[in-house]
Amino acid sequence: MPTLPPLSGNMLIAQSGGPTAVINQTLVGAVLEARNHPEIKKVFGAMHGIQGILDENFVDLGKETPANLERVAQTPSSALGSVRKKPTAEDCAAIFEVLRKNDIRYFFYIGGNDSAETTHIIHEHARKAKFEFRCFHLCKTIDNDLRQNDHTPGFGSAAKFVACAFMGDNQDNRALGGVKINIIMGRHAGFLTAASALARVYPDDGPHLIYLPERPFSMDQFCEDVKKVMDKTGRCVVAVSEGVCDGKGTPIIAAFTKEVDSHGNIQLSGNGALGDLLADELKKRTGIRRVRADTFGYLQRSFPGLVSETDAAEAREVGASGVRFSVKEHENGSVAIQRKKTKKYGVDFVRVPLKSVAKDTRHMPAAHINKAGNDVTKAFVDYVTPIVGKLPEMGRLKNHPVK
Amino acid sequence: MPTLPPLSGNMLIAQSGGPTAVINQTLVGAVLEARNHPEIKKVFGAMHGIQGILDENFVDLGKETPANLERVAQTPSSALGSVRKKPTAEDCAAIFEVLRKNDIRYFFYIGGNDSAETTHIIHEHARKAKFEFRCFHLCKTIDNDLRQNDHTPGFGSAAKFVACAFMGDNQDNRALGGVKINIIMGRHAGFLTAASALARVYPDDGPHLIYLPERPFSMDQFCEDVKKVMDKTGRCVVAVSEGVCDGKGTPIIAAFTKEVDSHGNIQLSGNGALGDLLADELKKRTGIRRVRADTFGYLQRSFPGLVSETDAAEAREVGASGVRFSVKEHENGSVAIQRKKTKKYGVDFVRVPLKSVAKDTRHMPAAHINKAGNDVTKAFVDYVTPIVGKLPEMGRLKNHPVK
Repeated sequence: MPTLPPLSGNMLIAQSGGPTAVINQTLVGAVLEARNHPEIKKVFGAMHGIQGILDENFVDLGKETPANLERVAQTPSSALGSVRKKPTAEDCAAIFEVLRKNDIRYFFYIGGNDSAETTHIIHEHARKAKFEFRCFHLCKTIDNDLRQNDHTPGFGSAAKFVACAFMGDNQDNRALGGVKINIIMGRHAGFLTAASALARVYPDDGPHLIYLPERPFSMDQFCEDVKKVMDKTGRCVVAVSEGVCDGKGTPIIAAFTKEVDSHGNIQLSGNGALGDLLADELKKRTGIRRVRADTFGYLQRSFPGLVSETDAAEAREVGASGVRFSVKEHENGSVAIQRKKTKKYGVDFVRVPLKSVAKDTRHMPAAHINKAGNDVTKAFVDYVTPIVGKLPEMGRLKNHPVK
Repeated sequence: MPTLPPLSGNMLIAQSGGPTAVINQTLVGAVLEARNHPEIKKVFGAMHGIQGILDENFVDLGKETPANLERVAQTPSSALGSVRKKPTAEDCAAIFEVLRKNDIRYFFYIGGNDSAETTHIIHEHARKAKFEFRCFHLCKTIDNDLRQNDHTPGFGSAAKFVACAFMGDNQDNRALGGVKINIIMGRHAGFLTAASALARVYPDDGPHLIYLPERPFSMDQFCEDVKKVMDKTGRCVVAVSEGVCDGKGTPIIAAFTKEVDSHGNIQLSGNGALGDLLADELKKRTGIRRVRADTFGYLQRSFPGLVSETDAAEAREVGASGVRFSVKEHENGSVAIQRKKTKKYGVDFVRVPLKSVAKDTRHMPAAHINKAGNDVTKAFVDYVTPIVGKLPEMGRLKNHPVK
């Protein structure tokens, strides 16, 4: 391991992008670890990500008690507030000036690939100005689409919510029959939609079909697939990623917009349009009468009291690792979760270059998707099971026949 | 207490209507209690409610082990399957014939007000035919709209889901700002939507506005209300019942249909249309940019691992009480939950006439709704708190200022 010279100064941490159920674990992990290092003087939090840095809207996290920090760690969504702002190079220069002015020598930005890019650009400015500071990106995203990572903090808990929701919904569909379509978050990567497969306990359990953004979606094939399942079992639960696109890469909701609404005024997400479109088309084309659609929406990323314990512990460690790296080992980087190649599940928290995580996203590997493109493979289930952890037990009557 | 003459014969139990997270507690409560009474011989379950009776599609619940029954009790949705069929008088006559043929002397039907009516009509047929049998309705509904009941099994757990969802969603909205609208189940009664109020921990927590079917909904007033909250806090979380109607009793989604879609092909429920409509109108009329809507849908009634312990215990006792009433005390009736008039929360399980629960539904009392018709009162919160039980703790940073 390289050993860095000691660097004394203040620390700043902020949160960015879509919240998760464990993003505060990472915040608290970093804040508590900083207390072990006398090099780190004051610990500031910026409100609403880079917007709070630009505005010098800081809070003093050094005055937080461990007990209150623990309560915050258990609470979903970004305690420091978040932002969706993608900074310009000028913003990054301004941000760097604020850091210099406040003697911030340790900077941590919790977020996804865009946040990694922000961190990277800020670091470039500091390098050019020969400002000595430590600059880290701390990974998070329920989409699980960060390069260099086996998986990302927030994904395991969101996946647990999705799996639990499908477990219950499968029971609901079993009781009343028909088709149930659930739309899951994940614009470009299907991991979260794929996690619905964990809901399967008995051989006839749903989801019976899973559609991912990694494979082109055909309305004809979808209707045919559902009909086949209905003919066989009399019911069908379907998981569909909000990001499914046709063969040309056009989002399905956009491809069909003209058929559903003549006002040309349809949003692509944050509403129930895709689920409603699929339900309507299915009814129209197959004559199946009971078709319902739910869009899980924001519940997936911020539901309290339903975290994966593995996810929570790893999110905490991402924060703590980042601080440890920054003090003694690395001048900059992104903290990545990489899986040990051992039989028993375990991970390493490693430092990877900022650039290697920034911008581009990661997709589900081909080995995780079945040939027909309407389900996941055992390889995916093996991959995701330890990340999600324990799920509720699903009981079923034995249906002993009456003589 | 009246004492009935002993009656020996078989028992039949079935489930009907929308599933709940604890409807199997009632099933298991009845099945296990029946084992304590030698008068009750075989215990059958009918699959998919009255459809299973008409088809003589029975399973032998006497052969179920207590351990498996406990697993089933913990599992959401109707283990015997459900049905939405409203029987004709002819169906009820046919059902009665099946009961007589199978020497069923104890009959239990778990469901809402329609199921109470079915049970009542079956009982009338038996009475006219001078067939001696015991005939009970066992209450359930997440809508909490059964007359004679302080509250109904299934409501507490659904309310817990709604409260938790709003707790997380409030944090999410706090991080990213804007308006978030959540559509909650409950066509005619607002209890479940109202339960969102339990999500409030800090003074500025959402939901900031609550719209119930018990009060006429005005799009103008809604937009004005939201704008007022936005001006004050910069964010707004809104709970809206799927059943909100205009002053003439027309569902809002129907009243605005022509403005959103020219195909005249819009469903009234089981989709995201109402949430999308409200979000679109709000953006159009107020210019607020970030407006999102989620429709909680079926997750509310069948989410596993998130039950109210009070709800689960009471649902179990409704089943057990029904069996006890039927053996010794009452020939027919509906088991109702009535609250003790003590300071400490407690309930009595009482037998009420079938007819008094059937058909008509109960609404939120005026004392539970604020004057403006856009919130609940403290009286409602006091009413609902013990039914829902413990909720997750929500932490918050103290936001110590930086000097």
